[in-house]
Amino acid sequence: MSELRQNLITRDWVIIATERAKRPDQFANTKKIPAFLPQHRADCPFCVGNEEDGTLETCRLGDRTGWKVRAIGNKYPALSPTAERIRISSGIHRMMSGIGFHEVIVEHPRHDLTTALLTVEEVTDILLVYRHRYLEIKKYPHVETIVIFKNHGESAGTSLEHPHSQIAATPVVPSQFRSRIDAAVRYFDDTGECLFCRTLEDELASGERVIFESEYFVAFIPYAALSPFHIWIFPRRHSSSFDDITDAEITDLADTLKTVLAQLYYGLNNPDYNYSIRSVPTAEQATKYFHWYIAIIPRVSKQAGFELGSGMFINTALPEESAEFLRSIAIPGDRNFRPS
Amino acid sequence: MSELRQNLITRDWVIIATERAKRPDQFANTKKIPAFLPQHRADCPFCVGNEEDGTLETCRLGDRTGWKVRAIGNKYPALSPTAERIRISSGIHRMMSGIGFHEVIVEHPRHDLTTALLTVEEVTDILLVYRHRYLEIKKYPHVETIVIFKNHGESAGTSLEHPHSQIAATPVVPSQFRSRIDAAVRYFDDTGECLFCRTLEDELASGERVIFESEYFVAFIPYAALSPFHIWIFPRRHSSSFDDITDAEITDLADTLKTVLAQLYYGLNNPDYNYSIRSVPTAEQATKYFHWYIAIIPRVSKQAGFELGSGMFINTALPEESAEFLRSIAIPGDRNFRPS
Repeated sequence: MSELRQNLITRDWVIIATERAKRPDQFANTKKIPAFLPQHRADCPFCVGNEEDGTLETCRLGDRTGWKVRAIGNKYPALSPTAERIRISSGIHRMMSGIGFHEVIVEHPRHDLTTALLTVEEVTDILLVYRHRYLEIKKYPHVETIVIFKNHGESAGTSLEHPHSQIAATPVVPSQFRSRIDAAVRYFDDTGECLFCRTLEDELASGERVIFESEYFVAFIPYAALSPFHIWIFPRRHSSSFDDITDAEITDLADTLKTVLAQLYYGLNNPDYNYSIRSVPTAEQATKYFHWYIAIIPRVSKQAGFELGSGMFINTALPEESAEFLRSIAIPGDRNFRPS
Repeated sequence: MSELRQNLITRDWVIIATERAKRPDQFANTKKIPAFLPQHRADCPFCVGNEEDGTLETCRLGDRTGWKVRAIGNKYPALSPTAERIRISSGIHRMMSGIGFHEVIVEHPRHDLTTALLTVEEVTDILLVYRHRYLEIKKYPHVETIVIFKNHGESAGTSLEHPHSQIAATPVVPSQFRSRIDAAVRYFDDTGECLFCRTLEDELASGERVIFESEYFVAFIPYAALSPFHIWIFPRRHSSSFDDITDAEITDLADTLKTVLAQLYYGLNNPDYNYSIRSVPTAEQATKYFHWYIAIIPRVSKQAGFELGSGMFINTALPEESAEFLRSIAIPGDRNFRPS
């Protein structure tokens, strides 16, 4: 018999298909690890030498030719900062202009690397650029929500091999954010606690779904994981917005993020994945009831039909088993290891 | 500059990428139409001759060997009617047993057909079985929500070629349903109108997004379509639940559904798609504020990264252009035509 679990943070019910659950290693990518990507491609817009492609550089670590990480405007932005703010409500139609930000973070000069293979120092640089751009973009009064996300691999929605992530700043609060905030507010009003702090406490007490702990962060598979190897990274310190992160926390998060992505890389053979960093809307940063976090969703299963239809999720992996499996994965080298 | 539109029924904001919108025909499936599927496969569990595979038959139109449509228990059900109802709330964990229904509707004895190629009479038979099973399943007290859905093609989540759809009856109201109902209630309280009736009125008045009209139904691309060729079919008569449909409406809906799916089939070269029939939770059927409808989502674009991260949708097709394109598609043959 299957088991239903409710994810209190997303409010979704998940069917944990206990009877036909697969073994963790059955979720591994069956394609070969693309170990033979070139270090540089002349036709890659993010590779060294192609910086002058007309996109605006908004942040750079390192000098012009020896850069480490760059933030640039998206060549095909979904949202643009130069648009005029127009908002029209007519009958049942509501529209507004596509004002906002949509930037790309080029994570490394080398074409063939990915976060799991970077040094902790290199991941730290990426996170520093995230924070810098978050703080700058937040100053624009029409920005309501800022999300940082990464698409790794084709089934995660990217066709560009070069390691990169994105920042989107939207002029409205997406309804998905609003409903999660509403759930957190209701929990706070009922109990006087932050739902995220409470969840973290609970995960640490049980320990069976934790996959990595550092000084400031905890990575775990949620009790009601929406899909196989769905992972959350929570800061231990209550804070509603990513840009509030300290320097010490950034270095520590780099270690945590790299470790978890390396566990997936070595454990599941470089699966495609998305991650996103979710913060409270910019105008609500002082709140006690929301807690920023990172969600990682490996693209290791296909299940959209049932979900689109029923609004419920089916997870064919047991969260406790998946966590145990990831904890057991040995990562070659130390924190400064990088394949040459 | 892109344009944001809000879908008042789902509450989602959609970025309509006006600047980099594609032409409608650019969304066509590039694979060949699988015209050479066999009419029968000995190894297909849904083909004639394989009925005795241990699954429970819950409904059959026609006799045992000359059946037209069958409903059977899913061989690997996500939810099962024989489970005991157990619900546990412990700390922040909520779980319950996987009680409910998960059935398959085998839509036709032939292996190689699909709804777009069936006669209106054959589609009528499928809808009759939908209604019959809906009414039967609704009698079980632990059932809260019943959804009928279809996955067509691999990217829509099915690996089985034989034409089939599914019914899922869940023992909880999925949060996605709840939030849509909440939005509809709020609209009703504010205006005294059903949001769906109002939307339909508005689409008919403008006409630019309508793709097919019949006596009892209207098919259109919503103003804030969440993805390219996202289609809704609304009954003209206010009714909150699919099982309330009359015989005359069933025949009419069969014509509408077949026509719309044929427009997609011929216009976009047999794209993969999902459809679902969404009704109010069974306990709330008398409501004035919810309206059942069919949502069709062709799988013609990949965009999950931005959506997962930002909670917003990007649609690279203009709803008005997509509707005009589908209206222009000529469907070969009449309502009784079926390729031999």
